[in-house]
Amino acid sequence: MSKGKIAIIMGSQSDLPVMSEAAKVLEELEVKFDLTIVSAHRTPERMMEFATKARDNGYHAIIAGAGGAAHLPGMVAAYTSLPVIGVPVKSSNSIDGWDSVLSILQMPGGVPVATVALNGAKNAGILAAQIVSTFDKSAAKNLDDYKKKMKDKVLKTAEEVEEKGWKSGKVGF
Amino acid sequence: MSKGKIAIIMGSQSDLPVMSEAAKVLEELEVKFDLTIVSAHRTPERMMEFATKARDNGYHAIIAGAGGAAHLPGMVAAYTSLPVIGVPVKSSNSIDGWDSVLSILQMPGGVPVATVALNGAKNAGILAAQIVSTFDKSAAKNLDDYKKKMKDKVLKTAEEVEEKGWKSGKVGF
Amino acid sequence: MSKGKIAIIMGSQSDLPVMSEAAKVLEELEVKFDLTIVSAHRTPERMMEFATKARDNGYHAIIAGAGGAAHLPGMVAAYTSLPVIGVPVKSSNSIDGWDSVLSILQMPGGVPVATVALNGAKNAGILAAQIVSTFDKSAAKNLDDYKKKMKDKVLKTAEEVEEKGWKSGKVGF
Amino acid sequence: MSKGKIAIIMGSQSDLPVMSEAAKVLEELEVKFDLTIVSAHRTPERMMEFATKARDNGYHAIIAGAGGAAHLPGMVAAYTSLPVIGVPVKSSNSIDGWDSVLSILQMPGGVPVATVALNGAKNAGILAAQIVSTFDKSAAKNLDDYKKKMKDKVLKTAEEVEEKGWKSGKVGF
Amino acid sequence: MSKGKIAIIMGSQSDLPVMSEAAKVLEELEVKFDLTIVSAHRTPERMMEFATKARDNGYHAIIAGAGGAAHLPGMVAAYTSLPVIGVPVKSSNSIDGWDSVLSILQMPGGVPVATVALNGAKNAGILAAQIVSTFDKSAAKNLDDYKKKMKDKVLKTAEEVEEKGWKSGKVGF
Amino acid sequence: MSKGKIAIIMGSQSDLPVMSEAAKVLEELEVKFDLTIVSAHRTPERMMEFATKARDNGYHAIIAGAGGAAHLPGMVAAYTSLPVIGVPVKSSNSIDGWDSVLSILQMPGGVPVATVALNGAKNAGILAAQIVSTFDKSAAKNLDDYKKKMKDKVLKTAEEVEEKGWKSGKVGF
Amino acid sequence: MSKGKIAIIMGSQSDLPVMSEAAKVLEELEVKFDLTIVSAHRTPERMMEFATKARDNGYHAIIAGAGGAAHLPGMVAAYTSLPVIGVPVKSSNSIDGWDSVLSILQMPGGVPVATVALNGAKNAGILAAQIVSTFDKSAAKNLDDYKKKMKDKVLKTAEEVEEKGWKSGKVGF
Amino acid sequence: MSKGKIAIIMGSQSDLPVMSEAAKVLEELEVKFDLTIVSAHRTPERMMEFATKARDNGYHAIIAGAGGAAHLPGMVAAYTSLPVIGVPVKSSNSIDGWDSVLSILQMPGGVPVATVALNGAKNAGILAAQIVSTFDKSAAKNLDDYKKKMKDKVLKTAEEVEEKGWKSGKVGF
Repeated sequence: MSKGKIAIIMGSQSDLPVMSEAAKVLEELEVKFDLTIVSAHRTPERMMEFATKARDNGYHAIIAGAGGAAHLPGMVAAYTSLPVIGVPVKSSNSIDGWDSVLSILQMPGGVPVATVALNGAKNAGILAAQIVSTFDKSAAKNLDDYKKKMKDKVLKTAEEVEEKGWKSGKVGF
Repeated sequence: MSKGKIAIIMGSQSDLPVMSEAAKVLEELEVKFDLTIVSAHRTPERMMEFATKARDNGYHAIIAGAGGAAHLPGMVAAYTSLPVIGVPVKSSNSIDGWDSVLSILQMPGGVPVATVALNGAKNAGILAAQIVSTFDKSAAKNLDDYKKKMKDKVLKTAEEVEEKGWKSGKVGF
Repeated sequence: MSKGKIAIIMGSQSDLPVMSEAAKVLEELEVKFDLTIVSAHRTPERMMEFATKARDNGYHAIIAGAGGAAHLPGMVAAYTSLPVIGVPVKSSNSIDGWDSVLSILQMPGGVPVATVALNGAKNAGILAAQIVSTFDKSAAKNLDDYKKKMKDKVLKTAEEVEEKGWKSGKVGF
Repeated sequence: MSKGKIAIIMGSQSDLPVMSEAAKVLEELEVKFDLTIVSAHRTPERMMEFATKARDNGYHAIIAGAGGAAHLPGMVAAYTSLPVIGVPVKSSNSIDGWDSVLSILQMPGGVPVATVALNGAKNAGILAAQIVSTFDKSAAKNLDDYKKKMKDKVLKTAEEVEEKGWKSGKVGF
Repeated sequence: MSKGKIAIIMGSQSDLPVMSEAAKVLEELEVKFDLTIVSAHRTPERMMEFATKARDNGYHAIIAGAGGAAHLPGMVAAYTSLPVIGVPVKSSNSIDGWDSVLSILQMPGGVPVATVALNGAKNAGILAAQIVSTFDKSAAKNLDDYKKKMKDKVLKTAEEVEEKGWKSGKVGF
Repeated sequence: MSKGKIAIIMGSQSDLPVMSEAAKVLEELEVKFDLTIVSAHRTPERMMEFATKARDNGYHAIIAGAGGAAHLPGMVAAYTSLPVIGVPVKSSNSIDGWDSVLSILQMPGGVPVATVALNGAKNAGILAAQIVSTFDKSAAKNLDDYKKKMKDKVLKTAEEVEEKGWKSGKVGF
Repeated sequence: MSKGKIAIIMGSQSDLPVMSEAAKVLEELEVKFDLTIVSAHRTPERMMEFATKARDNGYHAIIAGAGGAAHLPGMVAAYTSLPVIGVPVKSSNSIDGWDSVLSILQMPGGVPVATVALNGAKNAGILAAQIVSTFDKSAAKNLDDYKKKMKDKVLKTAEEVEEKGWKSGKVGF
Repeated sequence: MSKGKIAIIMGSQSDLPVMSEAAKVLEELEVKFDLTIVSAHRTPERMMEFATKARDNGYHAIIAGAGGAAHLPGMVAAYTSLPVIGVPVKSSNSIDGWDSVLSILQMPGGVPVATVALNGAKNAGILAAQIVSTFDKSAAKNLDDYKKKMKDKVLKTAEEVEEKGWKSGKVGF
């Protein structure tokens, strides 16, 4: 297990199917994490308490996912100087995800949120591990292994496609 | 002076040229108001204190203006059950105002923000006066007078255009 | 029952599944309301008559839902100085809801519409109750209770997720 | 002069610089027209009166220009069965013109508005003349002459560019 | 039957489910029409021949539907001075319909296309009948009857909703 | 078989259903091609090697398809001076395809990518054959035959629609 | 001079400031070209004649620039099987360029247009030279030299920035 | 000086006015950094070399800014497992910045880029310092001081506005 610890929070239980991808990849990369529900709009005091204590509670980065007018990542960033990673979630009444993306990405000067792609919780997990890797070599090693596995997987499918062809004939360079 | 009292807040002094339109129209409609700066991201505790005490402090509605990832109106609405009117401000680094509009408008179920047009602070003031008019007949009267003045102004310009024509010849019905 | 009375109107019966959310939450908040169909484009005289008499008929706010080139909320606001709450409905031929949102939100100076999120009829109902709460303490109390219930529900799901974990392992702060 | 008569209306005097292009081209095409100011939101009764009497007053088509949440063309179309041509005006607080375009274009089934390009008042005038040309041969002739003039102008500039080159050298087919 | 005659054309047979709405409403309004397939990109000569002869062939307006980079309406308008009504079709690979809308609507000065809503073929049919109504009183009468039927239908559903309520209780003004 | 040879590459096997349309049409047009998987982000060295050697390996054009932040076409263009044809793929987490389109289309001056429509792999194949046709008459002939077949197909469906009518009655010019 | 010949056409003389970038870079790359004005909407017959004869007239590719509802590139592609390169021009009344981009890019299956970036005429020229390079080694050599010059220019500015720093202090790797 | 070291790179010297904000804030926060030009499209080998060696060269995070089809941040992330912070730059030919934002943000699973707001280089600098703060207490202290200074500045302007009023009269809570 790496020395880093990550918090994963989300505005609603309905975000869990998206956000659990962050948990999965952190497990795979052997980075510790806690996961819970914190709503900016329905539990603002809980959000404030969580965010102001996050560094003292041993977290090295916070992954926050939310949809629509997504204020959770930005408001957590208002309360802490830890890196906050924002995951725009494409919720049911979102306008194609644009609201989630823009209300997380377009933070004013002074209060950054590290935004990943729409529904990009897996990348949020990897980014958190990359942050841990700046002070923990084991995390760096796990990330390099992960990168290599991705590469090998592409090379293998490339080989298959080249061998078996795009329908059945022979293709490839 | 009407019996209602409105709070006008904004995330930054740079929003004042837009937001002062709300103040001007409230003055014209004889509704009392206070105006100050409250930043969701840089003074979250001040925002919380302001919002939680707003009803006890005698306010009947809160007008909140902000740009970019505009969290002020929505977070104020998280802390109070007063009507919150959100003004999306087209700030300098906004993406054509879409970020301001969507991060104010697209609030989740349970926590509404009454959103007006981009830079629509004047309408925010009128809407606040309309809220006051639900319990104060003098505000209703002032609003009806205001509506009549707008109408008369249109009729006068219509008359002028019909008389003098769109360049110089005679036009009109 | 509170002292306030709300009108809920919509352009077409096909808007009812969305707009009934406003009715449900007003019932829950114990605010009286009437609900009917008024089309700006197909029954403009009915719309005019409804809107011009709305204040005298005892309404304190009007909730108007429409889709596409959604003119109902704005035209009702042209005829009355009551607060008008606009609900952009994502109708079948809408361009992802952008038409509904923009033709309700972007009202010219002088004629505000309090716009809520796309399909955000529940929030329209809550906003109407918030307007009533400015002169009726029972509505304010119901809104505060509603806010507390929302908070408790989040705290409960947070507890469950922390106890049972995001798959089965132990998680939580 | 052709037998047709067109009405040109607009929501505000500030639309005149754009809308006068419709007047100019109708003059050039020798189609009669009247021009005035009619605001959907500030003079709804005047709009209703104008629209309901338009056919009896001898008009063959109505050109209506408006910006932002542009309800004038659609509401005029609600009151008359004459062809209504809508000109989306890019007004000062418009969101890049999208609001004007969508609130004119996306009319519900049953109530069409013939929409032209953003700020496309000249084309609104030509379209009105085309409508007149369906029953008036002189208008058709003028339109065909206009088309020919446009063509000749392009051919002349093509010749010039081919002769003089895109900077100074010889170019052309 | 009215004295007018309309042509309905479309770029591909796959547009027929959308475009047949224009045919249906013209039948209902008793305006004659022909309907066929003309592709701007695959049969440009046929398009040119059709468009240049359209007025001589007795048509009073042309309804042209197309999707994606929809050039049919604009190119037909290049060849004729008849009114051309463009129907943006939301085809399978369209980017949410924006491509269809913009490539029909945004015609350059001199060559108008009367654009209706996305998939708005029914309104294209009504608009064509409105053009016919400028010289044919029977068409005007049919359009006014159509308008009245729409109104009566709304009033009837309004009555039903008011009587039976939005779920089962009594609602209505 | 023509003298030209085309490479078809894509970022992931999940792009194959879209990209195989390029292969199909090249087969039909009798232009040779190879097809494989090359990921810009997961196998950047493979991409570099492929691209730098592409001209020496006998290719005349490269078709590259990718979705989301689609860097493959542009990065291949950075390494070679062969024509690169980019196919924006609408992948599962794409924001309606806008990300794919813009990150392929908006290349900086000096490094062009010939972009086709969203999911437009068939057109990428035809464009590649058109490039081959600039030096190989057989490809030009096949393309002209292809064009003729498309035309005949439209004429045939036009005939059918005109004969059988849009529902069952007789229609057509 | 290379063996290839390119045609550069544009819808209007107002497109010349943008489109002359294509001419400049073709001159620099020593590829012959002709340049003139051809309007799809105002000179459709000229466009047809130009496009149908383009291959016989010795052209190897056609660069076509247009703005707004930009039909020129796509219609030229309808008449020829030569590669057509489309340049979306951001004209004065364009809606931020989206109309130009989408009406050129989103061509239907069977009729490709090789689209470059908004106002990307320089890249259109380079792409044309790349097409010529598939059968003409001198063009390939010039392109590789051009690529090298671009690289050297970046390296030089990198060196300068590293030496002189981003304001005046020392920076660099 | 903190123990961390940051690399700031950008695609072109024209990005320097935007990107220097990252340098300024890192100086203020006492975090070391190097700054240079690296172009993904014009110097891909330099980019590869820089990125593959970045961790060994002692960097803890890389800030990469680019505009249009902005591939630099994503391609650097393809070559390293360090955290990469992407700054979308609104360059001259960008389509309102959407291309820059989407081609940086929407990275595929496995290769994250921590994206900040359009032109948000200052926030990129702060985010880099936050990453350093996870292993360096002095950086954390500097960030907390910075946060306090921002807060104090807002409180001071709030006081001024409350004292001097929004024009000259007395305002404030």
